[in-house]
Amino acid sequence: MQEVKLYDTTLRDGAQGEGISYSVTDKIRIAQELDKLGIHYIESGWPGSNPKDMEFYLKMARVRLKNSRLVAFGSTRRPHIKASADSNLKAFLKCQAKFVTIFGKTWDLHVKDVLKTTLDENLDMIQDTISFLASRGLTVFYDAEHFFDAYNANREYGLKCLLAAIEAGAKAVVLCDTNGGTLTSGITKVVQEIRPQINVWLGIHCHNDADLAVANTIAAVQAGADIVQGTINGYGERCGNADLIPIIANLKLKLGTNCISDEKLKELTKVSHFVSEVSNMKQRNDQPYAGESAFAHKAGVHINAVMKNPKTYEHIEPALVGNRRRILVSELSGKTAVLIRAKALELDLEKDDPKTKKILKLIQNLEHQGYHFEAAEASFQLLMQRALRKYSRFFELEGFRVVVEKRSEKKITSEAIIKIKVKGTKEHTAAEGDGPVNALDNALRKALADFYPTLSKMHLSDFKVRVLDEKAGTASRVRVLIQSQDEKDTWSTIGVSENIIEASWQALVDSVEYKLLKDKVFKATNE
Amino acid sequence: MQEVKLYDTTLRDGAQGEGISYSVTDKIRIAQELDKLGIHYIESGWPGSNPKDMEFYLKMARVRLKNSRLVAFGSTRRPHIKASADSNLKAFLKCQAKFVTIFGKTWDLHVKDVLKTTLDENLDMIQDTISFLASRGLTVFYDAEHFFDAYNANREYGLKCLLAAIEAGAKAVVLCDTNGGTLTSGITKVVQEIRPQINVWLGIHCHNDADLAVANTIAAVQAGADIVQGTINGYGERCGNADLIPIIANLKLKLGTNCISDEKLKELTKVSHFVSEVSNMKQRNDQPYAGESAFAHKAGVHINAVMKNPKTYEHIEPALVGNRRRILVSELSGKTAVLIRAKALELDLEKDDPKTKKILKLIQNLEHQGYHFEAAEASFQLLMQRALRKYSRFFELEGFRVVVEKRSEKKITSEAIIKIKVKGTKEHTAAEGDGPVNALDNALRKALADFYPTLSKMHLSDFKVRVLDEKAGTASRVRVLIQSQDEKDTWSTIGVSENIIEASWQALVDSVEYKLLKDKVFKATNE
Repeated sequence: MQEVKLYDTTLRDGAQGEGISYSVTDKIRIAQELDKLGIHYIESGWPGSNPKDMEFYLKMARVRLKNSRLVAFGSTRRPHIKASADSNLKAFLKCQAKFVTIFGKTWDLHVKDVLKTTLDENLDMIQDTISFLASRGLTVFYDAEHFFDAYNANREYGLKCLLAAIEAGAKAVVLCDTNGGTLTSGITKVVQEIRPQINVWLGIHCHNDADLAVANTIAAVQAGADIVQGTINGYGERCGNADLIPIIANLKLKLGTNCISDEKLKELTKVSHFVSEVSNMKQRNDQPYAGESAFAHKAGVHINAVMKNPKTYEHIEPALVGNRRRILVSELSGKTAVLIRAKALELDLEKDDPKTKKILKLIQNLEHQGYHFEAAEASFQLLMQRALRKYSRFFELEGFRVVVEKRSEKKITSEAIIKIKVKGTKEHTAAEGDGPVNALDNALRKALADFYPTLSKMHLSDFKVRVLDEKAGTASRVRVLIQSQDEKDTWSTIGVSENIIEASWQALVDSVEYKLLKDKVFKATNE
Repeated sequence: MQEVKLYDTTLRDGAQGEGISYSVTDKIRIAQELDKLGIHYIESGWPGSNPKDMEFYLKMARVRLKNSRLVAFGSTRRPHIKASADSNLKAFLKCQAKFVTIFGKTWDLHVKDVLKTTLDENLDMIQDTISFLASRGLTVFYDAEHFFDAYNANREYGLKCLLAAIEAGAKAVVLCDTNGGTLTSGITKVVQEIRPQINVWLGIHCHNDADLAVANTIAAVQAGADIVQGTINGYGERCGNADLIPIIANLKLKLGTNCISDEKLKELTKVSHFVSEVSNMKQRNDQPYAGESAFAHKAGVHINAVMKNPKTYEHIEPALVGNRRRILVSELSGKTAVLIRAKALELDLEKDDPKTKKILKLIQNLEHQGYHFEAAEASFQLLMQRALRKYSRFFELEGFRVVVEKRSEKKITSEAIIKIKVKGTKEHTAAEGDGPVNALDNALRKALADFYPTLSKMHLSDFKVRVLDEKAGTASRVRVLIQSQDEKDTWSTIGVSENIIEASWQALVDSVEYKLLKDKVFKATNE
């Protein structure tokens, strides 16, 4: 069975997509998720060019990954200096990465027009850079930028660049279709020609400018490539990189290569949605394998046939990639999915229990409204526990009012007035804030402070807002995701409403209740 | 030069995409646009199954198309009846179409499990149906549904179905990868085998379930297919059909086939956006060739190189398909990017002009605060024009107040009160909304309606919120991006503040001002 290594560059090349901007925390969360999925290599940034990326690597040096190797990215040394004098290369040593990918020029046009140096100096740059890093114990991959254009323009020189990298100790050379304009037949031809001339791992890195990135990647593997580079959901510069989601599914289910386990493959849809959520990018409904519509049947002819035999209009079983069939006229249920989740939370729930049916219905209703529990496990846990009456609420809302006011060019002000009932006592208080949600957050904490002092130990660490039905403009429903943390844990909660204040309120309440419930369980266990 | 016929099925197969529903008028508008583009065949509906489609064909019988042939779609006759007794077939005669595409089964699994008839009867159904229509003077194409699955399951029977269609008088047989699960190498192999056995036109129809539809279509043409079926923007059931936009560009620019003229090719981006507008689907920014980001450069390395020679990071010249290069103004780009943008807006700005320095400083300040102009070009344009005092504002804000109120479990309410000065008149009004921003939006439009009636022609099509400094939780700064559109254009505006209402207000005001400025310039140019 052909062995293929998965190499993800969402955090580096993906971050160059228009509209994407990751914080260090975003990067750490995504890296951990990719590790869980079983991605072999995670290219995460450019420590020499960017202090944020350096911070990420230094933080990650203390995080244990189970399956993945973290790879730092950077360029060959600058022309006419020593490798040891190049600050970008020194950054690799500082950032503590064990694996490094160096990209360099292979297209003579770039050497002349962009680097403005000689072809020989470029070869030296490749060789020096890789030798320098390899001699310090790093494993080095070489990204041959624009390889396919290079090979068409000057075959001999393109090959020389690869051989220089290998001679200098590169563990892999990666053929990049950087401009994304090569046809599939062209990829096949070049990889077939290069493969026998190379005695190290051969990688492929495609861009989607001609809408061929996934096909080109698959074709390269069929022609002998060992490593596939891509990004989750195909994020990246211009039209994006090759989308690892369909690539992984195709490699596994269509080509039968050994790349991830059957178990991990079932996480594919979840990971795709997780990354789009953290990236604050809309998930494409029609995304192959992972999209909401990927197995949705609309035409009557199709629905009838699928009811008789799903193979008639489904190329694979949706569950293999963790997705589900949807019949657009009447939604089907996902009872098993709920039971699996309940089990993970150690909640007793049997298939025939009437409570199971009740929870299932509740979830379906909420998901239909736009709740998305994959990204809000704490809210999901509370929902289950409320349905099973596993705890009573910590306070009751009687009402709130939020007022935001602006007078011509003066600073805008926000104030929240809140009335709640806690342990039989009524609290009526008010607070200001930097915005309406912050004012509400402040007022709620103020009202609860005397009753639940541990709340002072938690804070909200992330606040995300996503518009669901974007076509409705400012009247569309919004989904608010709040991440909270205390000294020990991080948890995520959700709210959905046409009103952003209402959605935020739901997520705020869940966040506070989760904290209080957690402390109560902890206290009980330790008493 | 290889000749390829373009066959569009946006109005039939595309309409099966989730979320798409065309009125008769929508269909007529799209058909006329496809005709202008030079599409050879337009498959537009199923007159026998749908009165709306019948109405469309009858209306179109009076519309003169310059380049395109209208094709009606339908199935083979039902089992065990005469073709002349089948109401679907009679509908073809009634609808006055001259070209008809008949789809039929070729996969034995479908014949047995779905039709529940014999393999021989299915062959008769194909033959009878095509003979019946051909004998009445119609040109008939045969869509061999699931051909690739069929061929793998029962090669001999698959081929028999094609030959039956040809014998009965089909002008073309179309190989369909209906479930979209075939790899590119599989398409190539099968088309190469079929091509020499067929003496009529050979067509290809791919779906995108494995993210390979465009590559598979191109591979089929390379293996000898004469007709390509697809939909504009790849709309269609599940993951959609093959996207004709990149297919046309690839056929023309990469394969050099004769399919449309150079002049028409320049309309490609416009047609793509027109169809997404009429379909009420969001245009994918990263769509190959036609997307807003398709030729957008973000990384500093790329921008510098593209300035030296666009070929370094562009696989084709954007103007060839009617798109344009965009230099994204972001933290990754510098002074050059600003000057390039100024030039594109036809604003006089020289490198040494003190105004340049002033604008640069302003941009840097705003970006430091979290503005992100790469995603808000309209705000960027207004910013430049304000700095250069190119226009005076359309109204002045005296103040607003937004009140959001919730009483225990009752529905939350939002109200906005606004006071502005327009053309010397004070307007003081109020409106409710689905949330605070919607209320504010409604109140602003209400206040401006009498003064600027064209505002009723614009609407907000997307509303995005991003939290910038996540560590600050609900007190963090938020960035609001609003996308607006009218009959002609789409534009994006931005606001940043710790207060989401303030941030939304900024973006709303820019959106309205951009619209008014645009209309004013348009009016001035046309007077």
